[in-house]
Amino acid sequence: MQAFVMEELGEVGFLEKDKPEMGPADAIIRPTKGLVCTSDVHTVHGAVGERENLTLGHEVVGVIESVGETVEDFEPGDRVAVGAITPDWGSTAAQDGHPSQSNQALGGWKYANVKDGTFAEYVHVNDADANLAHIPESVSDEEAVYVTDMMSTGFMGAENADIPIGGTVAIFAQGPVGLMATKGAVLQGAGRIIAVETVPNRQELAREYGADEIVDFEDGDPVEQIMGLTDDEGVDAAIEALGRSETFEQCVKVTKPGGTISNCGYHGEGEYVNIPREEWGVGMAEKDIKTGLCPGGRLRLQRLLRLLEADRVDPTKMTTHEFPLEEIDEAFHLMETKEDDIIKPLIDFDN
Amino acid sequence: MQAFVMEELGEVGFLEKDKPEMGPADAIIRPTKGLVCTSDVHTVHGAVGERENLTLGHEVVGVIESVGETVEDFEPGDRVAVGAITPDWGSTAAQDGHPSQSNQALGGWKYANVKDGTFAEYVHVNDADANLAHIPESVSDEEAVYVTDMMSTGFMGAENADIPIGGTVAIFAQGPVGLMATKGAVLQGAGRIIAVETVPNRQELAREYGADEIVDFEDGDPVEQIMGLTDDEGVDAAIEALGRSETFEQCVKVTKPGGTISNCGYHGEGEYVNIPREEWGVGMAEKDIKTGLCPGGRLRLQRLLRLLEADRVDPTKMTTHEFPLEEIDEAFHLMETKEDDIIKPLIDFDN
Amino acid sequence: MQAFVMEELGEVGFLEKDKPEMGPADAIIRPTKGLVCTSDVHTVHGAVGERENLTLGHEVVGVIESVGETVEDFEPGDRVAVGAITPDWGSTAAQDGHPSQSNQALGGWKYANVKDGTFAEYVHVNDADANLAHIPESVSDEEAVYVTDMMSTGFMGAENADIPIGGTVAIFAQGPVGLMATKGAVLQGAGRIIAVETVPNRQELAREYGADEIVDFEDGDPVEQIMGLTDDEGVDAAIEALGRSETFEQCVKVTKPGGTISNCGYHGEGEYVNIPREEWGVGMAEKDIKTGLCPGGRLRLQRLLRLLEADRVDPTKMTTHEFPLEEIDEAFHLMETKEDDIIKPLIDFDN
Amino acid sequence: MQAFVMEELGEVGFLEKDKPEMGPADAIIRPTKGLVCTSDVHTVHGAVGERENLTLGHEVVGVIESVGETVEDFEPGDRVAVGAITPDWGSTAAQDGHPSQSNQALGGWKYANVKDGTFAEYVHVNDADANLAHIPESVSDEEAVYVTDMMSTGFMGAENADIPIGGTVAIFAQGPVGLMATKGAVLQGAGRIIAVETVPNRQELAREYGADEIVDFEDGDPVEQIMGLTDDEGVDAAIEALGRSETFEQCVKVTKPGGTISNCGYHGEGEYVNIPREEWGVGMAEKDIKTGLCPGGRLRLQRLLRLLEADRVDPTKMTTHEFPLEEIDEAFHLMETKEDDIIKPLIDFDN
Repeated sequence: MQAFVMEELGEVGFLEKDKPEMGPADAIIRPTKGLVCTSDVHTVHGAVGERENLTLGHEVVGVIESVGETVEDFEPGDRVAVGAITPDWGSTAAQDGHPSQSNQALGGWKYANVKDGTFAEYVHVNDADANLAHIPESVSDEEAVYVTDMMSTGFMGAENADIPIGGTVAIFAQGPVGLMATKGAVLQGAGRIIAVETVPNRQELAREYGADEIVDFEDGDPVEQIMGLTDDEGVDAAIEALGRSETFEQCVKVTKPGGTISNCGYHGEGEYVNIPREEWGVGMAEKDIKTGLCPGGRLRLQRLLRLLEADRVDPTKMTTHEFPLEEIDEAFHLMETKEDDIIKPLIDFDN
Repeated sequence: MQAFVMEELGEVGFLEKDKPEMGPADAIIRPTKGLVCTSDVHTVHGAVGERENLTLGHEVVGVIESVGETVEDFEPGDRVAVGAITPDWGSTAAQDGHPSQSNQALGGWKYANVKDGTFAEYVHVNDADANLAHIPESVSDEEAVYVTDMMSTGFMGAENADIPIGGTVAIFAQGPVGLMATKGAVLQGAGRIIAVETVPNRQELAREYGADEIVDFEDGDPVEQIMGLTDDEGVDAAIEALGRSETFEQCVKVTKPGGTISNCGYHGEGEYVNIPREEWGVGMAEKDIKTGLCPGGRLRLQRLLRLLEADRVDPTKMTTHEFPLEEIDEAFHLMETKEDDIIKPLIDFDN
Repeated sequence: MQAFVMEELGEVGFLEKDKPEMGPADAIIRPTKGLVCTSDVHTVHGAVGERENLTLGHEVVGVIESVGETVEDFEPGDRVAVGAITPDWGSTAAQDGHPSQSNQALGGWKYANVKDGTFAEYVHVNDADANLAHIPESVSDEEAVYVTDMMSTGFMGAENADIPIGGTVAIFAQGPVGLMATKGAVLQGAGRIIAVETVPNRQELAREYGADEIVDFEDGDPVEQIMGLTDDEGVDAAIEALGRSETFEQCVKVTKPGGTISNCGYHGEGEYVNIPREEWGVGMAEKDIKTGLCPGGRLRLQRLLRLLEADRVDPTKMTTHEFPLEEIDEAFHLMETKEDDIIKPLIDFDN
Repeated sequence: MQAFVMEELGEVGFLEKDKPEMGPADAIIRPTKGLVCTSDVHTVHGAVGERENLTLGHEVVGVIESVGETVEDFEPGDRVAVGAITPDWGSTAAQDGHPSQSNQALGGWKYANVKDGTFAEYVHVNDADANLAHIPESVSDEEAVYVTDMMSTGFMGAENADIPIGGTVAIFAQGPVGLMATKGAVLQGAGRIIAVETVPNRQELAREYGADEIVDFEDGDPVEQIMGLTDDEGVDAAIEALGRSETFEQCVKVTKPGGTISNCGYHGEGEYVNIPREEWGVGMAEKDIKTGLCPGGRLRLQRLLRLLEADRVDPTKMTTHEFPLEEIDEAFHLMETKEDDIIKPLIDFDN
């Protein structure tokens, strides 16, 4: 089969590979739609270390090709979503309430990390009964593929923020994760949502997803702007959806004592992420800092798919581009340069 | 001043009373808009025991007439909302996170319970800095009066239900509290909202506030209907917004193991509220039962007012009737009979 | 192999059975020590319905006889504890944080319920890597067998009670689960522990495990006694460790507004468990009611075994009797009559 | 009256001051016993900025001299403890569950910060009914004075750590706060407590309060030692009780994915407290970071006093020195140099 791989650090291309094999609890799916993630680009540039001919991609929906002998709830032909994160549910970390950390830090993240990813004709799914979900009839593949990572991760950013009903939240960066954190904040009852972003089409989409105000950091220090908007009180919660220490520091600074900083950005560089000591109340201001990795699993997928079925959210507004699988390298290129106002490129496996 | 009182059990009428006095931390307000609550009717019929010439009412907004000497953040002329529940914030119950229970069970509920209520020309507010909130300019008095009880109580019903994002919730009864629980469920990220109600205009309003499906108990056992809708799996959470043991039992029955029953109904009758033993998993099915009394306090009011300012909710759809203060007895009459499809009667103090 | 079975309702005896078979992720163990549980007696009398020749027992430790091909962390000869509850960790209930409810209400409870129990020469363990734990060298088999149910269940009763550090808790009944709830309350930081019990050797053991005061219900209404001890304020938390509606009602009555009722008793009889309406604050006093079924799983077992290793608790004080497997019917007889001051009978499989 | 003050940066001494005045809800107490805190020394050196003739001290018990007219539960002659933190309970931060942050970051901390402290003949207490607690007869003044800060702060460190029952915790530094965090970990059910400390008498006391193992950082990198002790798995929770970025970083490093870092150290220096990016799982390893400031208030004091009454903890083991008020400067000197194996110096106001 054809697979789009990271040949080595910085190099991508198609490669002929064997169809994956599976164990008794697993499944093989044929992808229909996929999305390219900025973290795929990070991976190519070495964020998870060197890899050789590793298939890329982790956001995909498709049709079941075959299932192992102990799989009970899925069969060939079923239309399914597979989480970007596919935990080992029996691991002690999962038993402890942290399935995304199963077996090791970020251990639930397998695709294009510790095993081949999803940009291939066939994709392996571990523990199919636990890590797949049927896509409801009224939900399109394009909609559904957003639950695998963007909605799950962005909403997690909002859930971890412990936003009180009617509370005020600032969301730093409105890429696809930030946009879904903005929508997630609406779904958690936020009363005031301040989105920090400078790119016009992202600002506009942020408003569509529920942002009440936009802070453009090109107009001045976002900390000053947010403190000004909140009568110097700060926000109940700040969400970091970019992955830079500078932005994280701003989150700590704009959060009121007793508030929460929720990190869902991938911090790819530097030895440290810095907490500003004074604004952190010298370690005593009760500003909790929470982090998370995209929640996976059948139940999570089912619940997010249900939000699509009920038309509570339309993630397809983020699809700015569409490519057949053969042209996926162009999608990678755009995600790297962020040219052409790209937000999310949809990959069509059937054309 | 004129006050609308419960003269004795079952008897209401207007009475001339002295203007209330206040302590150093208190305030006096002149109401502009109020709402009659079904619990006012319960009170008249003896739900809190006998009372003599007790002024009725607990849902009101108005203008500050005067403030005590230690009040810092409010002054005469300010347009304010006052919570139906006005806790003693220094009490140990409040220190323990339960301000509505300050000093005794339901002790934060003072109006028309342990002191004169709000259907009078002047109303006393204890601890003004902690129990009042300024009404934002863009929010009308009619909108604002809904935060004092209906929004706070109904939303609490949804908050206590611990609805997972995308989860399924059943809400029993769509009176004003149930309707706000329905809207609250949307604001907590519910993916599927099943409202149980039989009155047509309430069913319609339930859909407007976010119910995806309506279960009419005149069409058959609501438990069977809900189990049918959910493939016999049950719901993640059930909200009791009526206050009857029978409805509470149904809540326990339709909730899946590990789910939550959130009670916000006022149980006015009977020695017991019954938990069905078997469907409760013989005491081991991890179905939590939570209760609450309308959260009060300045912060709560501010956050709910913010939701109005941001147009996240329009509670005025529930205003089916409007009366000047002089005709409030007609509002009480309708709330008792539920005639004329009444949901909430607005009382206008200025006409 | 020999197995001690429930032949039919009310009848027990030994039976020759085939050695259990196992799947690729499972294990077979040879028990060394076991404990008889009052719930075994309930089962014999029909609490979970009719059964035919079902092997009894669910509290056991032993040595691994064989493991399936995908088991990674255990091998023949290992000394292990197996939880009374052995969840399916991939189930949606487990993904939702409720492994004991996997697949159905109480679905994690398999032994002597939906499959053969542990009073046999060989015992089947599903998902061995997730449901077994190695017993540390310094911990004896007799100590270890208490983690499988008594410590896990009793401690859960205390954990669910949300006892504030220094708080006051009342624990109703001091059978083995109640005694471990008492010890659990100490380990959750309770400042005052009131144990309700009438049997002298249980009262004494309650004190040894940390009870500060004993309320003997033969000395008068326990509600009155507890309210008297607490200046009519009530307790922060009440734990029901008996499984009777009457006791449950007392728990609701003695709990202060804003407090918690934690149920860990098995309610075996009656259509309803009753909540006293008035003392429940007419459904608004914020008295949460929580339930649970013994938490299982490798991590839970490991952590409880660690408490034994660190000498934080000595559960063997509860061993009042000891029998070889051949005489287990005598243990069942005593657990039914509670004669001879029995608390827990230890079963020795090797003699 | 005589007061021990910080005359200016770096200078302390006695000064004659007027007896404090009080408002209607306040009280004046005459201290009997006090403790000097390392943070007093920080204050003298400028940690909270410049001050002129500010009375020092915030840990004290005493006898009520007089109460304001609205105080209900206390009267002259009562023996009372007063929290180091005396929140404004009506503030929005307190309503939000963060009384220690009332009105501003760390705003509940008033003594020797925004008003005169406790090392004087008379001490002012704001909101006496909410911020004082009666000392039980069986509890000595010396015992009781530890609840005002050391027990409340140290226990908070353990409570915020979310230690699972039987879980593993590492506590960095065994000064008085760290020692009480160690004891607090026992009271939260920790199964394994690793204390990091190098001073012999503190190591010894750590063991007495419940540490199972001591890691001496003079024996090598504590991160390596702790990872070695835990089979490279790390701990469920790490508590920072020193207030240095280096120690904080070690806490992040030794905490397993999904674990908690609880900070109760006062970070007095540097622009940043650093989070090590990689060991923090690039912002996705679900290692929560929590902070807190000593919880105050009557309920907290009552519950901690109850633990003394029940002999659950003996804090007086930390009293290594005792001085009459006149010689308090010697206590300050020793707390600065940590000479003579000092842990806590008790101040006796009556001699």
